[in-house]
Amino acid sequence: MKTYYDCIPCFIRQALEAARFTTPDETVQELVLREVLYAVGKMDLKKSPPVMGQHIHRIVRKFSGSNDPYKKVKDHFNKYALKLYPALKEMVKKSPNQFETAALIATAGNIIDFGVNTKLDQSVIDKAIENALSEQIVGSIKKLHKAVSSSKKILYLGDNTGEIVFDRLFIEQLPADKVIFAVRGSPIINDATMSDAVDAGITDLVRVIDNGSDAPGTVLEECSDIFRQSFWAADIIIAKGQGNYETLSNENKNIFFLLKAKCPVIAEHIGCNIGDIVVSQATDLQLKKNKPNS
Amino acid sequence: MKTYYDCIPCFIRQALEAARFTTPDETVQELVLREVLYAVGKMDLKKSPPVMGQHIHRIVRKFSGSNDPYKKVKDHFNKYALKLYPALKEMVKKSPNQFETAALIATAGNIIDFGVNTKLDQSVIDKAIENALSEQIVGSIKKLHKAVSSSKKILYLGDNTGEIVFDRLFIEQLPADKVIFAVRGSPIINDATMSDAVDAGITDLVRVIDNGSDAPGTVLEECSDIFRQSFWAADIIIAKGQGNYETLSNENKNIFFLLKAKCPVIAEHIGCNIGDIVVSQATDLQLKKNKPNS
Repeated sequence: MKTYYDCIPCFIRQALEAARFTTPDETVQELVLREVLYAVGKMDLKKSPPVMGQHIHRIVRKFSGSNDPYKKVKDHFNKYALKLYPALKEMVKKSPNQFETAALIATAGNIIDFGVNTKLDQSVIDKAIENALSEQIVGSIKKLHKAVSSSKKILYLGDNTGEIVFDRLFIEQLPADKVIFAVRGSPIINDATMSDAVDAGITDLVRVIDNGSDAPGTVLEECSDIFRQSFWAADIIIAKGQGNYETLSNENKNIFFLLKAKCPVIAEHIGCNIGDIVVSQATDLQLKKNKPNS
Repeated sequence: MKTYYDCIPCFIRQALEAARFTTPDETVQELVLREVLYAVGKMDLKKSPPVMGQHIHRIVRKFSGSNDPYKKVKDHFNKYALKLYPALKEMVKKSPNQFETAALIATAGNIIDFGVNTKLDQSVIDKAIENALSEQIVGSIKKLHKAVSSSKKILYLGDNTGEIVFDRLFIEQLPADKVIFAVRGSPIINDATMSDAVDAGITDLVRVIDNGSDAPGTVLEECSDIFRQSFWAADIIIAKGQGNYETLSNENKNIFFLLKAKCPVIAEHIGCNIGDIVVSQATDLQLKKNKPNS
């Protein structure tokens, strides 16, 4: 997906929110804003929005002096999700369709996105999980189930911390020996990295690799060789979250996107409403690749 | 009022909306966006937001190739307000407090602001006028009435087209020989200029001058000598709209601000809610001149 003009004011808003989130120092906040304005002004709009997100958060980290400014909320949401885990595990166990229930909970967990909302609290997650099972979804979990059943190599692209505990519930429904779970290569917003996969208990279930990149998505040309090999070798990719959607929506590969639509540009690109739960094969989405900007 | 960090993403959103409003050409829209990002990145934040608004709309005019891209909506809203005028004039006439009723209608008319909303339609104006007489106001029209009664020189700073027809209703309640009405020096967004004052019939009532500037507010150091003389000679200034508030809130002068609060930063600066009708003497407002940015 390219960057739409509507993404541009949103980048600046996100940069301001990130600057305020990472430092109370107004001089630093202003430096971040000015640097981001300059960077966005030069941006190649053919690239996907997470490429700019990556750049913005490099600026935020540089000026805030912290390599992982979201560390505290990352740990907090991992712990909170782990607290919910036993009850949700029980819910999945008792469900008539365990695969579907686990997939829905994992997708609802995609609400934990500090790139979209830095003021997120636990009640938002409780509500998203609570509503997950009754909401209409965009796509077909049955189709995903069928694709998983006939696959030999499944690459599961994680997204955020906290959320990956819900991913664990879903991964427990997949054939462990066929799954590779991938995290980001280094800290970016509240996205999950290797230590989060360890905390969430995913490393005990399946092979986990990192993608070698600090983009809040999957910018293939920047990823490590090992990740890229796993990507192209997989029969099916399960890609969580908006960032993975934005960066991979144009790839010619069997991808299922699992996300909660939180941004108007992405919702329009997918052809769904904000708030919708999407569990859909790329080829089934009405991708408006050449949608105009006006 | 200084420019707050929250104004910065809003500038970019406004620039995009203005670019889309003035041209369907996406290449031009992108040029405007990039030029505005660069300009905002260098901006002196001690200056008020309309100084940047002025700059943004100079860029919009330069790239769109039109000296007055809002001409059509300006004429449309003048005509629409003139259509409403006879009934409103009658309403004022029959009102137990004509001064108050006219002041409220004039202030409600401040909703016609294309800097804030380029998708404004007539129903929004109808509703604003309809609600004007029943809404709680911030400030005191009685105080304004008293100040007007004891003044010898009243300078009335207009704001938008359409709105100035409602201003005419209020000006009819003021001592005509004591009033100077001021408009912008040249086209900026949908702000009123001399030809609009003629169309609205204000030139038949009182002396009208232009301020010599293309800022969407009153940037004194840029205004003409004649305007500045009128400004400093006045006993009382009646300043309409957010732009005049933003540019004059720090001036040591007897100013009454009449506006409809449409932006969260201004509402917080004034200490009111979005949507509030404000008719208040500057000295009565809890101006947070050194309010921090975080």
